[in-house]
Amino acid sequence: MEMLRRAAKIPCVTGIELVGTWDIRPDNAKQMKKALVNAGLDCVSIIPDLFADKRFWKGSYSANEPKVRQYALDYTRQMCAIAENLGCGILNIWPGQDGYDYLLCADYERAREWLCEAIATLAREFPKIRFALEYKPKEPRTHSYVARMADTLLLAQETGCANVGVTIDTGHAFVGGENVGEAILLAKRAGDRLFHMHFNDNHTMWDDDMIVGTVHSVAYIEMLYWLDRCGYQGWLSMDQYPYREDAAQAIGESILWLRQFDRVVQEHRKEIDKLVAASDAVTTSRFLRKVLA
Amino acid sequence: MEMLRRAAKIPCVTGIELVGTWDIRPDNAKQMKKALVNAGLDCVSIIPDLFADKRFWKGSYSANEPKVRQYALDYTRQMCAIAENLGCGILNIWPGQDGYDYLLCADYERAREWLCEAIATLAREFPKIRFALEYKPKEPRTHSYVARMADTLLLAQETGCANVGVTIDTGHAFVGGENVGEAILLAKRAGDRLFHMHFNDNHTMWDDDMIVGTVHSVAYIEMLYWLDRCGYQGWLSMDQYPYREDAAQAIGESILWLRQFDRVVQEHRKEIDKLVAASDAVTTSRFLRKVLA
Amino acid sequence: MEMLRRAAKIPCVTGIELVGTWDIRPDNAKQMKKALVNAGLDCVSIIPDLFADKRFWKGSYSANEPKVRQYALDYTRQMCAIAENLGCGILNIWPGQDGYDYLLCADYERAREWLCEAIATLAREFPKIRFALEYKPKEPRTHSYVARMADTLLLAQETGCANVGVTIDTGHAFVGGENVGEAILLAKRAGDRLFHMHFNDNHTMWDDDMIVGTVHSVAYIEMLYWLDRCGYQGWLSMDQYPYREDAAQAIGESILWLRQFDRVVQEHRKEIDKLVAASDAVTTSRFLRKVLA
Amino acid sequence: MEMLRRAAKIPCVTGIELVGTWDIRPDNAKQMKKALVNAGLDCVSIIPDLFADKRFWKGSYSANEPKVRQYALDYTRQMCAIAENLGCGILNIWPGQDGYDYLLCADYERAREWLCEAIATLAREFPKIRFALEYKPKEPRTHSYVARMADTLLLAQETGCANVGVTIDTGHAFVGGENVGEAILLAKRAGDRLFHMHFNDNHTMWDDDMIVGTVHSVAYIEMLYWLDRCGYQGWLSMDQYPYREDAAQAIGESILWLRQFDRVVQEHRKEIDKLVAASDAVTTSRFLRKVLA
Repeated sequence: MEMLRRAAKIPCVTGIELVGTWDIRPDNAKQMKKALVNAGLDCVSIIPDLFADKRFWKGSYSANEPKVRQYALDYTRQMCAIAENLGCGILNIWPGQDGYDYLLCADYERAREWLCEAIATLAREFPKIRFALEYKPKEPRTHSYVARMADTLLLAQETGCANVGVTIDTGHAFVGGENVGEAILLAKRAGDRLFHMHFNDNHTMWDDDMIVGTVHSVAYIEMLYWLDRCGYQGWLSMDQYPYREDAAQAIGESILWLRQFDRVVQEHRKEIDKLVAASDAVTTSRFLRKVLA
Repeated sequence: MEMLRRAAKIPCVTGIELVGTWDIRPDNAKQMKKALVNAGLDCVSIIPDLFADKRFWKGSYSANEPKVRQYALDYTRQMCAIAENLGCGILNIWPGQDGYDYLLCADYERAREWLCEAIATLAREFPKIRFALEYKPKEPRTHSYVARMADTLLLAQETGCANVGVTIDTGHAFVGGENVGEAILLAKRAGDRLFHMHFNDNHTMWDDDMIVGTVHSVAYIEMLYWLDRCGYQGWLSMDQYPYREDAAQAIGESILWLRQFDRVVQEHRKEIDKLVAASDAVTTSRFLRKVLA
Repeated sequence: MEMLRRAAKIPCVTGIELVGTWDIRPDNAKQMKKALVNAGLDCVSIIPDLFADKRFWKGSYSANEPKVRQYALDYTRQMCAIAENLGCGILNIWPGQDGYDYLLCADYERAREWLCEAIATLAREFPKIRFALEYKPKEPRTHSYVARMADTLLLAQETGCANVGVTIDTGHAFVGGENVGEAILLAKRAGDRLFHMHFNDNHTMWDDDMIVGTVHSVAYIEMLYWLDRCGYQGWLSMDQYPYREDAAQAIGESILWLRQFDRVVQEHRKEIDKLVAASDAVTTSRFLRKVLA
Repeated sequence: MEMLRRAAKIPCVTGIELVGTWDIRPDNAKQMKKALVNAGLDCVSIIPDLFADKRFWKGSYSANEPKVRQYALDYTRQMCAIAENLGCGILNIWPGQDGYDYLLCADYERAREWLCEAIATLAREFPKIRFALEYKPKEPRTHSYVARMADTLLLAQETGCANVGVTIDTGHAFVGGENVGEAILLAKRAGDRLFHMHFNDNHTMWDDDMIVGTVHSVAYIEMLYWLDRCGYQGWLSMDQYPYREDAAQAIGESILWLRQFDRVVQEHRKEIDKLVAASDAVTTSRFLRKVLA
């Protein structure tokens, strides 16, 4: 509840994401609903804890143990029910433990099949909820099954459900060697499957969870352009875990950066249309010098 | 012709890939056909030169210039006709120049649409030829449109043609941060779309085109297992450009390494089935110590 | 004590490294000394906890706060005294928190000066102890001050003390883009400053702490060759934190791999001399095929 | 000569670097001297061609062949004589072919010794010339001997000559995982050995030779701050090989970016002093938002 109060005070914040078990459980759902109303915050998404719960240390939907797979499914159902109750339309699924560490240590065929079945089952049972799969190339496993935009889209399409899509975490995408602007377009082409956005920054090698704009600049301008052009209507959520900084201030900074970058896009929307059509690095550089530095 | 003679002398070589324009053109197709018969070599694939030809320096199928796109299409048609004439079933398409270098310098939507249309057009016109798209994350561009397995599969599916699939170049996959074994399985699930394999090794940061096995070992064992398990029937082609080594000897080494790794897989096929099902790193390590070192 | 018993049971283990505060403190030093004798284990090194202790969350020897820098120094002195008492000749210094996360957020000049002064002070006060600086390019900070072999050697030389040298952690070196064989030679040239070796394996992008040999093979053969050639007399220590495996078994595997690789080096010592002198990739490949796979 | 005219027309250009053999040889040195005067350009440095000349394809100063090593030395002497004649104080040495591709294929000890001897010999023979070693982690070899700032400083110190120092190519440093600001400080501490700066930008994985500022922004502000603080008096040279852009315009853009970034540093010099001393990411972020975007 304290967290809600602090979040509500950060300028421009109008919603919050809740982590399952940690923030939201069947036993506190009613109370949380009231608290959200009092704080004037929407519940943006629920993120079931498939990553820190010890039961999932070797995978959730794709764990070798049938009991673990069943529990992962039942636990997510519980979170879906709460989401419906809270009027929250998105389940942000980050199956962080579903992957492998060593080569010759995983049956990719079976694992992917289990993962796909579980997501499809949930998506069919809760047709009003949009399941946003959050990809990340690695960590905590050395290799994740849901690793980058394109493989996540393949998985979403395999489920055969229109309510299965993708969350881009900008930091995860950087680590995966992706250009986020292009990833946004891929999701558009694959049936308008970009459901959610998590923002943060990093040095491109690891999920450093840094303040937006302290490493990358051009990349954010480009991604906001493509979000706009692809008609993205979802949230712009700040997903940071500041270790050595004041959390509220660090998140506040990310928001202000993003707004500055967005102002650049809004004020030069047509000019950017021409830049991407022209494909001339010198002209693009000249534009960037005008709006940055 | 000299190249054919030298290739035919490398032990275990029974076919060869021909690069369009460089090795094979309408004017030498007849002669090449005879030479292949004389050398006892199959034409494994034709690789149209979409990368070194100056006309394609800013893209081929997705170039901004309509004339360049048209020429890329017509040129590939010419190569398809030659392939049919030579009894060669695969066109290996590496659109190396189709991509971008700078952010805010490319219209990903338009480019991907053009790329997809061109491939679909070719695939419909030549239904007996299998179009194997060779992905590579970068170089010569800093970002390629056909970058990794999953985005290539999305593109193949978008064409709506069953004769569009993928070539894995193991070195390109390493650079892309992929685990090749898993990539093979992805292609299987997406409609059995692995059409061709290019082998070489590198230090994972760049397409160093090194002898197979001089950097990676376990990765090759794993990928040969998954090729076998997924019922891959295609060629195992050595794709190397040795800069400072004797080419025939370097390629010969790669072949011998691959045969050794394949022997490991064939002799322990069921044991590996158990390892991937068990997901126990210690057991896998014990197995690897037995077959390596 | 239980840890000592389990360690002593792993074949070929004759010594153990103790982490300051966690394993060894002034209050349990006597007891530990006895326990080590009983278990028949040497104390290989003491690793002061400069990384997990909350007081050091923004640095130890190079922290902005004078009190923290003083505490880091005093705490290390305490560990040095214990080491002398235990007959342990090496302090393995991993200043993991000494670094920075953001650009324009650290005074590299002042920080490096403080770091250098602290190490020099300790080295002069405890001349019988060898201070082995363990480098790591990043984590927990996005940038560490003691990052790679060469900058660590520069630091060691700046102290002006012959008892300041380096620990190579093979995993840290892989992450830093180093070739360990070459790093060993650099330390040799800079005044025989390789004091200690930590072994583990990873996928080269992060400190995955995996079983030796499950990713790299040739690299271990090469590094054992250069250790031998440079006359390294120190320990070969297994530094792993297996998250999902049985710890004793995973460490046991690493030891067995290393022994196999070392057998290759011992049995082909002169042949390898010729390979490195000849610089012919095909000949080296042929050798590797003989000893691997 | 045409190149000189085009270079002289780029705003703010007052000097040029000449590549040995390509741009400058004994036979055209007189003519070039005149042309430089006419164009009003200084000769900033001479870069002996140790990389593209076929004779050096397996190394120059560290080649296994004694004749090649001798030729490399003699050729560089020739370039030194021309430099003295042209009043050019810097020889920029990029020994790009000195390195190795495969493990167990090079004798690092012998190679480094040869490299060190050659540089020391030259530095002693031409005491008025400053030898600026340009490091690069890889390419054309998969591993270069002169790879990063710290190992280059070790080499410079080993020569025992104060006129041996370092060139930072910002792109090479990015590829090496370095933070350039910190590298500048390392050179300062190691005896004020930063002799020369090459500027360009890239996506951090490869030497893409892009326009400054099109990928990184904060990094350039930080490095200009540290150049200023460390009292760097040398040139700021643009080292780009634009493949698909107009060369003069692309270089002109880099210069304009750098001037903008430098203006930020000059106008906020004391504020940045405080930021680096304070080590608070939120304050630094606030500053960056003010000067960027």
